[in-house]
Amino acid sequence: VKVIGLMSGTSADAVDAALVEWPEGPAPRPFALLAYREEPIPAELRARIHRLAAGRVPGPEALRELARLDVILGERFAAAARAVADQARVPLAAVAAVASHGQTVAHHPEDRATLQIGDPSVIAERTGCTTVADFRPRDVAAGGEGAPLAPFFHFAVLGDPREGRGVLNLGGIANLTWIPRDATPEDVVAFDVGPANALLDGVVATLSGGAESCDRDASLARRGRVDGALLARLLDDEYLRRPPPKSTGRERYGLAEAEALVAASRACGRGAEDLLATLVRFSAEAVAGACRELLPGAPRPDRLLLGGGGARNPALCAALREVLPGVPIESMDAAGVPADAAEAMAFSLLGRNALLGLPNHLPRCTGAARATVLGEIVPAGPGQSFATRPSSATS
Amino acid sequence: VKVIGLMSGTSADAVDAALVEWPEGPAPRPFALLAYREEPIPAELRARIHRLAAGRVPGPEALRELARLDVILGERFAAAARAVADQARVPLAAVAAVASHGQTVAHHPEDRATLQIGDPSVIAERTGCTTVADFRPRDVAAGGEGAPLAPFFHFAVLGDPREGRGVLNLGGIANLTWIPRDATPEDVVAFDVGPANALLDGVVATLSGGAESCDRDASLARRGRVDGALLARLLDDEYLRRPPPKSTGRERYGLAEAEALVAASRACGRGAEDLLATLVRFSAEAVAGACRELLPGAPRPDRLLLGGGGARNPALCAALREVLPGVPIESMDAAGVPADAAEAMAFSLLGRNALLGLPNHLPRCTGAARATVLGEIVPAGPGQSFATRPSSATS
Repeated sequence: VKVIGLMSGTSADAVDAALVEWPEGPAPRPFALLAYREEPIPAELRARIHRLAAGRVPGPEALRELARLDVILGERFAAAARAVADQARVPLAAVAAVASHGQTVAHHPEDRATLQIGDPSVIAERTGCTTVADFRPRDVAAGGEGAPLAPFFHFAVLGDPREGRGVLNLGGIANLTWIPRDATPEDVVAFDVGPANALLDGVVATLSGGAESCDRDASLARRGRVDGALLARLLDDEYLRRPPPKSTGRERYGLAEAEALVAASRACGRGAEDLLATLVRFSAEAVAGACRELLPGAPRPDRLLLGGGGARNPALCAALREVLPGVPIESMDAAGVPADAAEAMAFSLLGRNALLGLPNHLPRCTGAARATVLGEIVPAGPGQSFATRPSSATS
Repeated sequence: VKVIGLMSGTSADAVDAALVEWPEGPAPRPFALLAYREEPIPAELRARIHRLAAGRVPGPEALRELARLDVILGERFAAAARAVADQARVPLAAVAAVASHGQTVAHHPEDRATLQIGDPSVIAERTGCTTVADFRPRDVAAGGEGAPLAPFFHFAVLGDPREGRGVLNLGGIANLTWIPRDATPEDVVAFDVGPANALLDGVVATLSGGAESCDRDASLARRGRVDGALLARLLDDEYLRRPPPKSTGRERYGLAEAEALVAASRACGRGAEDLLATLVRFSAEAVAGACRELLPGAPRPDRLLLGGGGARNPALCAALREVLPGVPIESMDAAGVPADAAEAMAFSLLGRNALLGLPNHLPRCTGAARATVLGEIVPAGPGQSFATRPSSATS
């Protein structure tokens, strides 16, 4: 079954599109990534999304702007789906479904409210493909936080009958999915470990007055030395010790913290290279500490699979190898999941499972009361039917 | 197949719920209404909906309030579905689906934007029933106005092989669906004829300083005499002459027009009874004129079926009989569709057709480029599967 997964993150930089071929039956493996691409979102549209999500559209216009962007993003998502099918030389008529995460413009689990836009009716109409979307609201309706959803994908495609595996996504924040050897869905644990690129990038941006956005190839961090006293202070962190489920973000490990660290380093004459080297080590130690202290049974991972932009940071990879001696650390690519394509592939699987009537989230990770099927299905057009439960079909 | 239809109009007064049993196959008849009820929406919640839809929630709070009301209304809709199933003594496990129109909070077809809330994921989770919702966005995506949708229901359940039938819904505005004898979907014409209760109620509210909301049992109108000169002036109306497709609303035939009419009547000494009698006649003449001038082939309807609150206005029914002599005029009730239940029954049918993969709108009436299947389907839970197109299932 060929399913296109679409993902647009909160940064609204680009739509990621992945066309994956899944088995016909319920098993998720073997799978094959047929094509992957990123469709940039133009700056003007990105600015409108951020303006809406930040609540800066005045009340009288807010709903209309929301409804407009819902359609405009639906068109963009449809175009991204068409483009990735073209790239794979697969006709859309051979694609079983498009599965779209949507663009999050509000997420308030405390109000049981999460809102993604990018109208799936537009995607279905423009592609002629069955479209699945709005995954998070169903998890929230079932008592969950609506997040994280990626661990289901990690479990399904990266779990192993002989190895306990950690899947570490190094985006702005480091997210860890722990999949014990031969795990059931209930065995999987996933949480936000602590800082990754958000803090490192924030320091570089602060040091350069905004001229640089990241430490390319870790050229600064690799020249620095770890400051043991600073590292100890950083590791004395309430968040790192808190047991999962837990999540964090840039409000804790972002620009504000980076500015404070740069100011303190300047005050004591610590160089930029040393600060960055220490922060790289901090991120790595947070991961090692999480493995030691927060995973049930304090397992030593048999393997760590890396994804996200941080997987290409040589200093961070080296630090992880130092703090987790003897643990094989490699990119998800080795398991058939190119790190850049992982999120879009995850929604491809979630959508495929929705079509098959298979659960597609991990209640232990999201907090949902029970496993159900996330997603709303928009038919491609006439001639498709949806099998309701036997009890109702025969009533 | 038992399907619950839910409708909440723009007034947000109540959720209408209808449980209808449809045939298993594609034919829509014979059907049976098993139960119908109205669940009032509490005044406080109604005020929040109107405040949001009117753009009076400040920008920083608008999206969060939208997301909150989406969930709160989803809970209300689920409760209405449970209540109507209870009333019919049908267990929810025997209900194939809940089909929900949702609460419209924005409708801008010129922006291709229409927004209904009342989260279907919440309805599915709380009822355990497959839920179909978001019908209008797909019609808009297919090039239509997203409205009117009720004519599909009229065509399916009230069309006749031997009679050309007009279905006249007398709500605030009079909506006419014309179904020629033995019609195909392409033969049906539907449009807003002109004023109905909105103008009559506006006059009563103006005359009584807001103390009365309508002319109960037409007791005032029945005592009045039609003012021929005023009637002629009212009938000289550009909207009435305009060919369909067309739609109108309270902005044309509502409180502002009512106030102007009351002021003019006071100025010339015309009594309230005469004004109301004339407006009743105006509504009726507008219908007769539409049948004469605007229907293809200028047919004489073999029968007129009435729905909406105006169907219970004896003066309006009498005036229709006068202006359409020889045309049998009766309530939809006679055809198995209680007027109050009609809208909720319509969405029950639209949802049932979505499950069966059958078209559920009339492109000629909405302006859509082609007939497709409206609605997004939320699975009840694991174990249901969605049959994608054969071409993709075998690819």
